[in-house]
Amino acid sequence: MIVVMKQRSTDEDLKKVIGLAQKYGFETNVSKGIEKTIVGIIGDNVYERKEFFESLTCVEEVIPVLKPFKLVSKEFHPVKTVIDVGGERIGDKFQFIAGPCSVESKEQMERETEFLSGLGVKFLRGGAFKPRTSPYAFQGLGLEGLKIMKDVSEKYEMKVVSEMMAPEDLAIFEEYADVIQVGTRNMQNYRLLETLGHSTKPILLKRGFMSTVEEWLLAAEYLYYHGNSQIILCERGIRTFEKYTRNTLDISSVPLVKILSHLPVIVDLSHATGRRDLIHPLAKAVVAVGADGTMIEVHENPEKALSDGQQSLNFEEFNSTYNDSMQLVKMMEEI
Amino acid sequence: MIVVMKQRSTDEDLKKVIGLAQKYGFETNVSKGIEKTIVGIIGDNVYERKEFFESLTCVEEVIPVLKPFKLVSKEFHPVKTVIDVGGERIGDKFQFIAGPCSVESKEQMERETEFLSGLGVKFLRGGAFKPRTSPYAFQGLGLEGLKIMKDVSEKYEMKVVSEMMAPEDLAIFEEYADVIQVGTRNMQNYRLLETLGHSTKPILLKRGFMSTVEEWLLAAEYLYYHGNSQIILCERGIRTFEKYTRNTLDISSVPLVKILSHLPVIVDLSHATGRRDLIHPLAKAVVAVGADGTMIEVHENPEKALSDGQQSLNFEEFNSTYNDSMQLVKMMEEI
Amino acid sequence: MIVVMKQRSTDEDLKKVIGLAQKYGFETNVSKGIEKTIVGIIGDNVYERKEFFESLTCVEEVIPVLKPFKLVSKEFHPVKTVIDVGGERIGDKFQFIAGPCSVESKEQMERETEFLSGLGVKFLRGGAFKPRTSPYAFQGLGLEGLKIMKDVSEKYEMKVVSEMMAPEDLAIFEEYADVIQVGTRNMQNYRLLETLGHSTKPILLKRGFMSTVEEWLLAAEYLYYHGNSQIILCERGIRTFEKYTRNTLDISSVPLVKILSHLPVIVDLSHATGRRDLIHPLAKAVVAVGADGTMIEVHENPEKALSDGQQSLNFEEFNSTYNDSMQLVKMMEEI
Amino acid sequence: MIVVMKQRSTDEDLKKVIGLAQKYGFETNVSKGIEKTIVGIIGDNVYERKEFFESLTCVEEVIPVLKPFKLVSKEFHPVKTVIDVGGERIGDKFQFIAGPCSVESKEQMERETEFLSGLGVKFLRGGAFKPRTSPYAFQGLGLEGLKIMKDVSEKYEMKVVSEMMAPEDLAIFEEYADVIQVGTRNMQNYRLLETLGHSTKPILLKRGFMSTVEEWLLAAEYLYYHGNSQIILCERGIRTFEKYTRNTLDISSVPLVKILSHLPVIVDLSHATGRRDLIHPLAKAVVAVGADGTMIEVHENPEKALSDGQQSLNFEEFNSTYNDSMQLVKMMEEI
Repeated sequence: MIVVMKQRSTDEDLKKVIGLAQKYGFETNVSKGIEKTIVGIIGDNVYERKEFFESLTCVEEVIPVLKPFKLVSKEFHPVKTVIDVGGERIGDKFQFIAGPCSVESKEQMERETEFLSGLGVKFLRGGAFKPRTSPYAFQGLGLEGLKIMKDVSEKYEMKVVSEMMAPEDLAIFEEYADVIQVGTRNMQNYRLLETLGHSTKPILLKRGFMSTVEEWLLAAEYLYYHGNSQIILCERGIRTFEKYTRNTLDISSVPLVKILSHLPVIVDLSHATGRRDLIHPLAKAVVAVGADGTMIEVHENPEKALSDGQQSLNFEEFNSTYNDSMQLVKMMEEI
Repeated sequence: MIVVMKQRSTDEDLKKVIGLAQKYGFETNVSKGIEKTIVGIIGDNVYERKEFFESLTCVEEVIPVLKPFKLVSKEFHPVKTVIDVGGERIGDKFQFIAGPCSVESKEQMERETEFLSGLGVKFLRGGAFKPRTSPYAFQGLGLEGLKIMKDVSEKYEMKVVSEMMAPEDLAIFEEYADVIQVGTRNMQNYRLLETLGHSTKPILLKRGFMSTVEEWLLAAEYLYYHGNSQIILCERGIRTFEKYTRNTLDISSVPLVKILSHLPVIVDLSHATGRRDLIHPLAKAVVAVGADGTMIEVHENPEKALSDGQQSLNFEEFNSTYNDSMQLVKMMEEI
Repeated sequence: MIVVMKQRSTDEDLKKVIGLAQKYGFETNVSKGIEKTIVGIIGDNVYERKEFFESLTCVEEVIPVLKPFKLVSKEFHPVKTVIDVGGERIGDKFQFIAGPCSVESKEQMERETEFLSGLGVKFLRGGAFKPRTSPYAFQGLGLEGLKIMKDVSEKYEMKVVSEMMAPEDLAIFEEYADVIQVGTRNMQNYRLLETLGHSTKPILLKRGFMSTVEEWLLAAEYLYYHGNSQIILCERGIRTFEKYTRNTLDISSVPLVKILSHLPVIVDLSHATGRRDLIHPLAKAVVAVGADGTMIEVHENPEKALSDGQQSLNFEEFNSTYNDSMQLVKMMEEI
Repeated sequence: MIVVMKQRSTDEDLKKVIGLAQKYGFETNVSKGIEKTIVGIIGDNVYERKEFFESLTCVEEVIPVLKPFKLVSKEFHPVKTVIDVGGERIGDKFQFIAGPCSVESKEQMERETEFLSGLGVKFLRGGAFKPRTSPYAFQGLGLEGLKIMKDVSEKYEMKVVSEMMAPEDLAIFEEYADVIQVGTRNMQNYRLLETLGHSTKPILLKRGFMSTVEEWLLAAEYLYYHGNSQIILCERGIRTFEKYTRNTLDISSVPLVKILSHLPVIVDLSHATGRRDLIHPLAKAVVAVGADGTMIEVHENPEKALSDGQQSLNFEEFNSTYNDSMQLVKMMEEI
């Protein structure tokens, strides 16, 4: 990393910086410019000490040269990670994760699972514990919802993906879910990440809606660092000033993550747009850009959904989106 | 709330909307424009049903007319809330909350507390459990840190403010802290809010760095709804594209919250700016705008702080900021 | 539009609002809720009077129901606009607009145009008048640059696309360019839009990097309103807090604009990303999502480009991007 | 500046970078880290060549160490600039710039000017040429509006501040205005800046609502570079996702600009908030933070204003804001 000295810093100041670097076993390289002096700091794990240099009053700024994540980086692990979820893989073929926003009843889930499974979808999503902006909104069926998903998914041979909101729920998620989702508002809930680092289940890590790609990869680094390397990244749109869509899909993050990391990355189109009418064209874009899959909300009757009905596809819409996307997946193999 | 029908919607569609409203016991008022028809939906708790109307395919959008929070609103409770923290009040006089970013050792805390208490500061901040973007950064002393704070604060008659990161830590925070802080990354950690709703301790609720004022007040509504009305709001800057400061202080949120809510509101200047050199002038602005207090990081030797040294004031800087601010507080009484 | 009255407004206030509406010839529809009263205002061109209602102290807010643009909307003109640029069309087939960031010399343009024309590209881009953040950066060759483009484009039968920065340059652009570009920083330069409204040349209107889709369409409305209906919209990324890319490509804006407007829409991938290594995968996404084309910076030797070299493709990279995209265009016809 | 080499770059690559630096007469300093090699590039005007280094494929990134602006920086000119506008100074005392959003008629301006002048306000604002998001909104009285302002301002001995939208209007602004305003949407209209660089009138340069402080200072650098050093910076709020206010006032930019630059800086509170009810408390904050003045929209009857009525103060509100602010200005002298 590079330490930029303040313009009026003295030789004493420079010695202080070099001394601090030596104390930690780092090498230094000083470059005196016309107006400013900079010090290159070289060594293992320099970033763990970055703040100490920033705190010095003679220092103007400390500029990182290396990326701050390691375990999830491509340099650390050049081979792409493929995640095996009880026989279904994420990372080496395009996968759909579909299902309702919320689990509402056994009957609803049964019909929707039958439909999805009939198409060939292997991953079933559904919210049981729902993070809601308002305390007055439907909060989900909780444990009962998870049990319903487990039941129907076994019957139709699908894998369950569901969001976990607090460390204390780990045991039940380990029992009822196949992939544990970390929601956008919890991407930097470090206790939750630490807990899930000790889990044996794969984690679907949503990007925080106001997080940079670097912070997202650092959240993945938390999971990995605490022991869980089975991580699926999920772009789901970021918050901008645009008001015609719920969020702004950052599609560039897909090829970017593929350059930076070995982890698979998918796109949640329902939250990224908040609009039914954009999902079909964007699903094709997600295939074409090279994502490892997409997550889409589907409801047998979106008009009666207990949550997120305005962004859920009905069976007919999903059917058409699914088929066109899978046809494109095949075609892309020829390019 | 107002339901806007799609341009090509039929009379059947209109009947469907009206029927749904009647089912929930709401009144309706139809207004047919040249291009669009709108339906006013009137009744208690209409927002709990907002999503159901949005899900209808004949509906273009649903526009709220009332604010979605109630318990924390000024309309619900016109008298300003003053919070009593063991004899020290927040809400009826300007208060300083000061201390280091992290508790580092007993000796450090002792010296800093002695200094702050000597000036007249009543609230001591200090991180024991630290949410850090990187798993490689210092994570705090944990329980030991809380115990140190408790000890020194009792000796110097100050009140302890510290951040709690997970529901499972409630018991120890109830024992060692006087005010429990919810951090910016946890503002929408609903399980944490629910848990703290059952606490008897006042909560200092930081605004999410990516949250609107409405979402911030809805997070406060969660606490209130689950039983805890002792809430101090804390603006701490939002994320923008500006790169010369760590965040962008949204100072307008202070008078805005005072119009919308009865809760006290303070400003965390250290995180809002990330720069020592902006804190003195901004502290005066925070007093002048009418905030109920400010939170500032202080360190006996910022150059040796284990975290956030570059934004912590040293004793001399804090002394000058404190004195000028308190002088301004007095002067403001005359305006 | 809907006028929401303040909570403590009186019957007198209501009469005032209704009276004002009647004065402008609008119809009104009053709906009294439990807490608030709302007034629907119906009539032609209500938005021209929106501000007057907002200014009333008894009014809390005025909520638009209709979109504020007309001439560029699909409702006004349901048939998609196809623009004929001297025989080459934009709007009914996927088009590439390619060329260097800046015109640097006749020889450079000659070699690049020969290469692009050889591939089958029909539109040549190149900056002659360059808007630069710093007065110390290369400002372009000006008129000489335009003349060079005109010469080489005629030789290789391509169409010239170039950015105009001020109304006073209209005459030379009418002489030397085939499509006049409005840059992102000038999207709300209304005098420029008005001037170009009187031009006979098609306009390529870049989206402001901090503009909503609504504001972008309103800028197009300015051109149309002042007489020029030949408008190509160009998404080029918006500013967010992400730092690994230059901007954030808002790919959803493409299908969104196609729902809202009859105008063709293309994507400038070079500015949207600022990185060579993301352009190939994103070009495929832009084809798949249904855009009418893409604009990409190409340079015979990006390492020696006078501007934007880090985001320009070299011939080999462009060749591969172009061929894969065009192959995908063909395949998409089967979906 | 610092050139960071790509991880797999060769010694040949390094030689290429050093050679390029030498070609421009720069010195270099190489620092080989464990994973990456960095090259410090030292010399005058290195930033004019920054792009050339970025374009090299062996280079990962180029990191600036010095700020890119010079003439407006405090280092270049340590003494604060005070601007003399026909005897009234900006920069050494707190000034109010007040008046209606738009000039509407001679009678209106006469009454408002009489009121403001009576209070002691020295600068009269008023829009004659109005940049409007919609072509259907009131566009201002144009030249007639400027003439009205000139007339009444002479009668009441005030100075005229008004926005100029295009280079072609320079002559009339030189005749009728005392301070020429560059609006937020034109902050990066470089032809306009260049033209005003040749003007003898002081320029009030609004910050772009999407611009960083660095870009704002670079826009000021344009004016200075082209010959006009009489520049007043004006913060007016930036665009964020917050929806309860029109923009987000970035009050930190005031002390920040005072650290970085010698130019005076004021705050436009009307556009920063878009709400009448926030202006009084924020005016006090603007005084306390050390700004050189504030700009506020006032209208004799905001309910009948032709534009921006909802954010304009009436005479009574302005009177109280003005008096409290000026009282605070006096008190601040004692701190």
